[in-house]
Amino acid sequence: MSAHPRFSLNQATIKHASLAEAIAATRGADIQSIGVWREPVADIGLDAATRLIADSGLRVSSLCRGGFFTLQDGPERVAALDDNRRAIEETAALAAAGADGSAAVLVLVAGGLPAGSRDLIGARERVRDALGTLEPFAAQAGVTLAVEALHPMFAADRAVVSTLGQAIDLAADAGPSVGVVVDTYHLWWDPEVLTQIARAGELGRIASYQVCDWITPIPADSLLGRSVPGEGHIDFAPITAAVAAAGYTGDVECEIFHADVWARPYDDVARQVSDAFTRVVAPHL
Amino acid sequence: MSAHPRFSLNQATIKHASLAEAIAATRGADIQSIGVWREPVADIGLDAATRLIADSGLRVSSLCRGGFFTLQDGPERVAALDDNRRAIEETAALAAAGADGSAAVLVLVAGGLPAGSRDLIGARERVRDALGTLEPFAAQAGVTLAVEALHPMFAADRAVVSTLGQAIDLAADAGPSVGVVVDTYHLWWDPEVLTQIARAGELGRIASYQVCDWITPIPADSLLGRSVPGEGHIDFAPITAAVAAAGYTGDVECEIFHADVWARPYDDVARQVSDAFTRVVAPHL
Repeated sequence: MSAHPRFSLNQATIKHASLAEAIAATRGADIQSIGVWREPVADIGLDAATRLIADSGLRVSSLCRGGFFTLQDGPERVAALDDNRRAIEETAALAAAGADGSAAVLVLVAGGLPAGSRDLIGARERVRDALGTLEPFAAQAGVTLAVEALHPMFAADRAVVSTLGQAIDLAADAGPSVGVVVDTYHLWWDPEVLTQIARAGELGRIASYQVCDWITPIPADSLLGRSVPGEGHIDFAPITAAVAAAGYTGDVECEIFHADVWARPYDDVARQVSDAFTRVVAPHL
Repeated sequence: MSAHPRFSLNQATIKHASLAEAIAATRGADIQSIGVWREPVADIGLDAATRLIADSGLRVSSLCRGGFFTLQDGPERVAALDDNRRAIEETAALAAAGADGSAAVLVLVAGGLPAGSRDLIGARERVRDALGTLEPFAAQAGVTLAVEALHPMFAADRAVVSTLGQAIDLAADAGPSVGVVVDTYHLWWDPEVLTQIARAGELGRIASYQVCDWITPIPADSLLGRSVPGEGHIDFAPITAAVAAAGYTGDVECEIFHADVWARPYDDVARQVSDAFTRVVAPHL
């Protein structure tokens, strides 16, 4: 089965691959786009990474990930913001090296409550402040910052942005270079998700669409309860149709965190995920 | 430390206790109210249970639980609705046996997706239909049905009602004898929670307030990541103050699902939870 032209393999799906291996698996499965993570880029350096991307002929659908904005004022917060500025520069460089249609999107994960803090409202305000600080820098670099709401089960320790509506509010406040990620795994349960996807579209804020299924029971490591579309509980039809109706025409990433998926050969995973996308998601685009 | 006059020990906190043991632990800790579960009532029969309650001098703050409304039409759905009618009768009987101020509140858990189904929207509509069917029966019995939104991590396999806003919508549609549970563990992450608590108050729909903390990492059995107020990530001040400002004057239950808590002597747990409530929650009531 040939890959859908809008399908993108997010590198986290083959977590243990180097960037070169991830590119090889992506091209081997006839996939045209890749979502890149910062760690494998750092492993070889940005210059080498951009050359690999340029030589690959692939589009870059996003760079994952910046964020972690909930720290209180102090040197660690300054360092986090500096690191996000570097991530913005990396995003611009990788997108420029990618084939036409590469997106210059930096996915942002908000960060959880600082150690020992229970001030969720304050943490959320610090995310708002950080986005306001970084937006002009992103605008100048031609990069869209994509705020990703994570499932509420991660609100304490990973991301205080928990719903699409909240992510849209943050993006709208921060300025035109901030958008949102629509991720089925994180958002499928939300009674407001279709309404908020439409709202994000009206505001021109959908920067990324990521698909991944929700499985039960939740594994002992609760981060890893993600699976290939079609293997879990999510109905991809209404969410995908809503994203399409909202005017999103970019690449659609599949990003899976699962120990069994990570243990398998990269080529096999790339093909399996691409086929699942073609079967389960693409008909609704 | 003497128990707060509005504190109620939900029986699930000492899960392995019989009703008689739970009553003894509650009274032993000078607690004036108890949240009862159906299973220990069934173990001894409703008549014996009402006698125990009447003799105890305790208020009954709620009966847990009815619901499981997501099944498609067929004999299993009919049986589920019949079982809820019995639960309503049990609630009325136990509340009548309880001391003055007992609440006649039946807590409802919606149920998850039926096996093999991905139709979340349809499942939610069947919850709405069931509430509409049961509301007149509850009204006649003088019982309030309390819809409990469960944390979105349970949307697939336990409760398709995932936010307080959604629970309020369902209650408002069903009629005056349907209200909502505000449960900190399930709702603390929601950016809309304070707004929705105020809305529930304006509509006169807060039927129960339950407190329990959110701990990380989430345990291997994801149902059991609940702990004593003050031990986790939740700030009880804003939510409790919002519930008070919304006009709720009833009992406040502490309901904890945690293997370590369940393993300890009932008396110790009752005192510890009561003290934690006095320290962490009561100042904001």
